[in-house]
Amino acid sequence: MDAPKNYAISLVVDNHKGILRDIGSVCAEHNANIILTQQETVTRGPDKGYAWVDLEIEGCDNAEDLVCDLRTIFGIRRVEQHDTFSTIFGKRVIVMGGGAQVAQVAMGAVNEADRHNIRGERISVDTIPLVGESNLASAVEAVARLPRASILVLAGSIMGGDITKAIRTVQAEEIPVICLKMVGSASDAADLVVTDPIQAGVMAVMHISSIGVFDLYRVKGREF
Amino acid sequence: MDAPKNYAISLVVDNHKGILRDIGSVCAEHNANIILTQQETVTRGPDKGYAWVDLEIEGCDNAEDLVCDLRTIFGIRRVEQHDTFSTIFGKRVIVMGGGAQVAQVAMGAVNEADRHNIRGERISVDTIPLVGESNLASAVEAVARLPRASILVLAGSIMGGDITKAIRTVQAEEIPVICLKMVGSASDAADLVVTDPIQAGVMAVMHISSIGVFDLYRVKGREF
Repeated sequence: MDAPKNYAISLVVDNHKGILRDIGSVCAEHNANIILTQQETVTRGPDKGYAWVDLEIEGCDNAEDLVCDLRTIFGIRRVEQHDTFSTIFGKRVIVMGGGAQVAQVAMGAVNEADRHNIRGERISVDTIPLVGESNLASAVEAVARLPRASILVLAGSIMGGDITKAIRTVQAEEIPVICLKMVGSASDAADLVVTDPIQAGVMAVMHISSIGVFDLYRVKGREF
Repeated sequence: MDAPKNYAISLVVDNHKGILRDIGSVCAEHNANIILTQQETVTRGPDKGYAWVDLEIEGCDNAEDLVCDLRTIFGIRRVEQHDTFSTIFGKRVIVMGGGAQVAQVAMGAVNEADRHNIRGERISVDTIPLVGESNLASAVEAVARLPRASILVLAGSIMGGDITKAIRTVQAEEIPVICLKMVGSASDAADLVVTDPIQAGVMAVMHISSIGVFDLYRVKGREF
């Protein structure tokens, strides 16, 4: 837990235009810096048709006053305080590619994350089996925009072209990329090439761990 | 792909208070209903210190005009149009519990999702190995707030108490819960109890698939 303790506020609100502006105004009045927001239309359950707004807040004058004032906004149904997604789900290892390989990388990563989380860290392993150059390229590129994405493992038999370009976009955001040993230019662009998928998953977790001693950049460009 | 085609707009902006309000105002002027927002402070890469804002938009008068007007806001560095996270990563199977079991459920779910995604669906398998009643209870409860979370699989040897209460919170949001066969009251609350973790992962994917024929609620309360 190297990040300072922030807190999350969840609101259920009328899904009308402008309500995000009103919430933003109240937060600004309280000097509450919104460092992460997720808002979604509720499509199920008792709040169906309303919107969920999840705020992660830092540097607020008084959290309880903020919650009280948020409750006075027109169209607000409910306001609750929670732990943040960073506190609950932590850093994310993202794994994508062919199903057979993704499943093996996930096995390595989940088992290694288990060992870290038992000692108080929070590391998630999030996967999507996906094939095809354009499908994969846009998914890889989107990793740069995923909240809390900390490392990407590409697991397949052949990847190149637009996928390789997308790898560079992700690396520009300082998210390292591990590739399995495979055909194509993707592995040339990767920060690390690993032959065994279990090992690739374990190394990905070790790199992003705040207590581990493994630093991928110290062996950058090498193949294991 | 049963959802209507929306689009995503990513903005890199100054991290000053009130900018979310300005973005909300411009969207409101264009009758652009923001159905999903993610905003985060950038902690790495060339945009470090700025904020990422990702908007998912529906029902906008003119998307290009909206993008142009967003670019005129004070403090906006960059505006890009993308596919949405729903289009790219789709519905999410969430798996949590002990590392050994989570890894096996993930293997079943990833391999089954692979078969679906090859035929044009988008199903992700997102996992976190986590133990301890309070840790797990707050993580389970948070699933109700996770974007695109469609089903939860609890994979462990013993779960009950606050975890069982949290299961009911998730179910109230119409997110079904599968439990492995295990000790404790969690499996009594689950919609389905499955002995084999591979099978649990496969069934979870089959249930949320838009093309599958398996409906968990038709066998609700049963054990396999």
